[in-house]
Amino acid sequence: MKAIALNATLKSGADRSTSSTGHMLGLIASELQRHKVECEVVALADHAIQPGVTSDEGEGDEWPMIRDKILAADILILGTPIWLGQPSSVCKRALERMDAFLAETDDQGRMVSYGRIAAVAVVGNEDGAHHVSAELYQALNDVGFTLAPNAVAYWVGEAMSATNFIDLPEPPQKVQSAIDVMVRNTLHLARLIATDPYPGRK
Amino acid sequence: MKAIALNATLKSGADRSTSSTGHMLGLIASELQRHKVECEVVALADHAIQPGVTSDEGEGDEWPMIRDKILAADILILGTPIWLGQPSSVCKRALERMDAFLAETDDQGRMVSYGRIAAVAVVGNEDGAHHVSAELYQALNDVGFTLAPNAVAYWVGEAMSATNFIDLPEPPQKVQSAIDVMVRNTLHLARLIATDPYPGRK
Amino acid sequence: MKAIALNATLKSGADRSTSSTGHMLGLIASELQRHKVECEVVALADHAIQPGVTSDEGEGDEWPMIRDKILAADILILGTPIWLGQPSSVCKRALERMDAFLAETDDQGRMVSYGRIAAVAVVGNEDGAHHVSAELYQALNDVGFTLAPNAVAYWVGEAMSATNFIDLPEPPQKVQSAIDVMVRNTLHLARLIATDPYPGRK
Amino acid sequence: MKAIALNATLKSGADRSTSSTGHMLGLIASELQRHKVECEVVALADHAIQPGVTSDEGEGDEWPMIRDKILAADILILGTPIWLGQPSSVCKRALERMDAFLAETDDQGRMVSYGRIAAVAVVGNEDGAHHVSAELYQALNDVGFTLAPNAVAYWVGEAMSATNFIDLPEPPQKVQSAIDVMVRNTLHLARLIATDPYPGRK
Repeated sequence: MKAIALNATLKSGADRSTSSTGHMLGLIASELQRHKVECEVVALADHAIQPGVTSDEGEGDEWPMIRDKILAADILILGTPIWLGQPSSVCKRALERMDAFLAETDDQGRMVSYGRIAAVAVVGNEDGAHHVSAELYQALNDVGFTLAPNAVAYWVGEAMSATNFIDLPEPPQKVQSAIDVMVRNTLHLARLIATDPYPGRK
Repeated sequence: MKAIALNATLKSGADRSTSSTGHMLGLIASELQRHKVECEVVALADHAIQPGVTSDEGEGDEWPMIRDKILAADILILGTPIWLGQPSSVCKRALERMDAFLAETDDQGRMVSYGRIAAVAVVGNEDGAHHVSAELYQALNDVGFTLAPNAVAYWVGEAMSATNFIDLPEPPQKVQSAIDVMVRNTLHLARLIATDPYPGRK
Repeated sequence: MKAIALNATLKSGADRSTSSTGHMLGLIASELQRHKVECEVVALADHAIQPGVTSDEGEGDEWPMIRDKILAADILILGTPIWLGQPSSVCKRALERMDAFLAETDDQGRMVSYGRIAAVAVVGNEDGAHHVSAELYQALNDVGFTLAPNAVAYWVGEAMSATNFIDLPEPPQKVQSAIDVMVRNTLHLARLIATDPYPGRK
Repeated sequence: MKAIALNATLKSGADRSTSSTGHMLGLIASELQRHKVECEVVALADHAIQPGVTSDEGEGDEWPMIRDKILAADILILGTPIWLGQPSSVCKRALERMDAFLAETDDQGRMVSYGRIAAVAVVGNEDGAHHVSAELYQALNDVGFTLAPNAVAYWVGEAMSATNFIDLPEPPQKVQSAIDVMVRNTLHLARLIATDPYPGRK
């Protein structure tokens, strides 16, 4: 059982140490670790991901390397900050590249992504987590991922607040509970599907 | 200059005194009053609004009376609670009934709703205000309303909180500021359009 | 294995024979039948479902009967028309009532809805299916449902068209394929989870 | 009176000649021209727009040049393709950069963007235009833009179609009508606001 987490923060390089999304993904990776599941975290903004909707947009495109990691894992955690109540452009870029899965099917019509379980992490100063999870659920489900119940861990502050999740003295208990539930359900489903994959068309 | 506010809380009758959405609309109505603009608040759940997409769904339908009030006003404030990160079913019902405006055009192609300015009030325990405003802006704009900048006043608590807006000791300063801006911009636009209406097609 | 389909059309009684959403749900029910799974279709607009977010809103409320049917089934198909690019008010009403599941947990923290698989049917004259599926996925996932990959069957016409799905000479092949995939994946997951339920917290 | 249109297609350079979004923006620019309003079209993917939420992300960032063009215009047309039912990552990137307007206010609290009218163009093979316009309306309204009624021109094909807008023999009459209405209303509002700007706080 292997997991990959994509951090869709706008921050790259050294700035990324201040990423609240990265902080949330770290908590999720720890919980996975507690269940003996390794989770690599990839910061998307550190990579040159070309605009496009194919799996390889040619010279200089680092998406193929990330795509390989996604397909080598059983579980995908997609983490994004909220800007203007919506997922980040970096997150949208990754989803666009996964659009290619729609045409990458086996001889029984199953996308290359089938059998993988997705979950979502959303962090913002204020408001937007439900909508962001809605958009990510739909896009990820469209491109072949399965969703266990309560597939999101999120934190946002009160309306029009400016506090960062990473600056809280410690994660609220409710956030830790949501992570526990998300990880437990996602792992359960990943194990079931690994043993007994989706059937193709006859 | 006249305004109407629709309260799309799920609560009816006596329960409605505990409506946080009603509390927000009261603050907005006061601000309008300060600008000498009368604002009637209609609680939708107190009325039998039939399912449908015409302006009159027949016997027992109280929408025609509400529709008359909307068309008699220059400004529409649509207020809704957030449930599951989304607008209430009562709010959706009112928008569906305004769908009829799409076909109610004058001989120059202008909907009967044209020239009216809309604004939005959104209240929840936690998360969802930006998405709710997005859905309301789009639906209201589709059926002929104009939107001044910053056309929303909202409040939500921290992620997974259970505090009600109406139970706060007083409205946060940022909420009052948002109301001030929303009312100021909306009134300015309503006055301009009242004097100089949208042109029709030649 | 048992399925229930909720038809959230605005049409009730005799009018419902013209429901395009009902037509889509009929195609899905047939495909389930082909897999030997019985699917009851309930037209929500034929029932008095009170506004609220509890499982029983008191006298005259017919939601408790529908809730019983949902909990007696392994699979929930939620079907809705599109109005103004969004799910119907009747659909939103049902989701609000399922909000109650959030607090209806066993001693291991699992909602009463856990272990059920949801899928979605969306029909409109034009545009809106992806957004509607996003909203339904998020709401259903929040209240405990699992989503198999490609959990939606939809049809919409070209931009600004007025053709109804039910009036097409026959369902497009692509729609039938989407139904096949949705049913196959959903059934597979329902069987896995029926045998091996989600674990609770220790 | 001056307009700027941003084309958020994923295509850059020579490929852009096949952009359906560019084709729609061309039709809108022609209609503006007919009203004697010049409209420059900027293809965002041809420019290095750094991730971030400030107005200048430093070396190599070409956003400041685009920002200048936006602020030099009275009207902003934001055009985006639909991918997975959602706006493009390139579109999201531009909105994130406009997030900076929230803090760029004059001594009366008015954002630097105030007084500008926005409209939206959305093009896809199938489904998603209403949701995309909802997200763009909300984001643009949040950062200070005004929206005239029916502020969107869109085209999408039937569910699961693959036809491109640019390959249609000619634009459907309904699309041209939507463009006419959008341009007429937007221009009217731009002229009113140019003469009589939004008041600031006292």
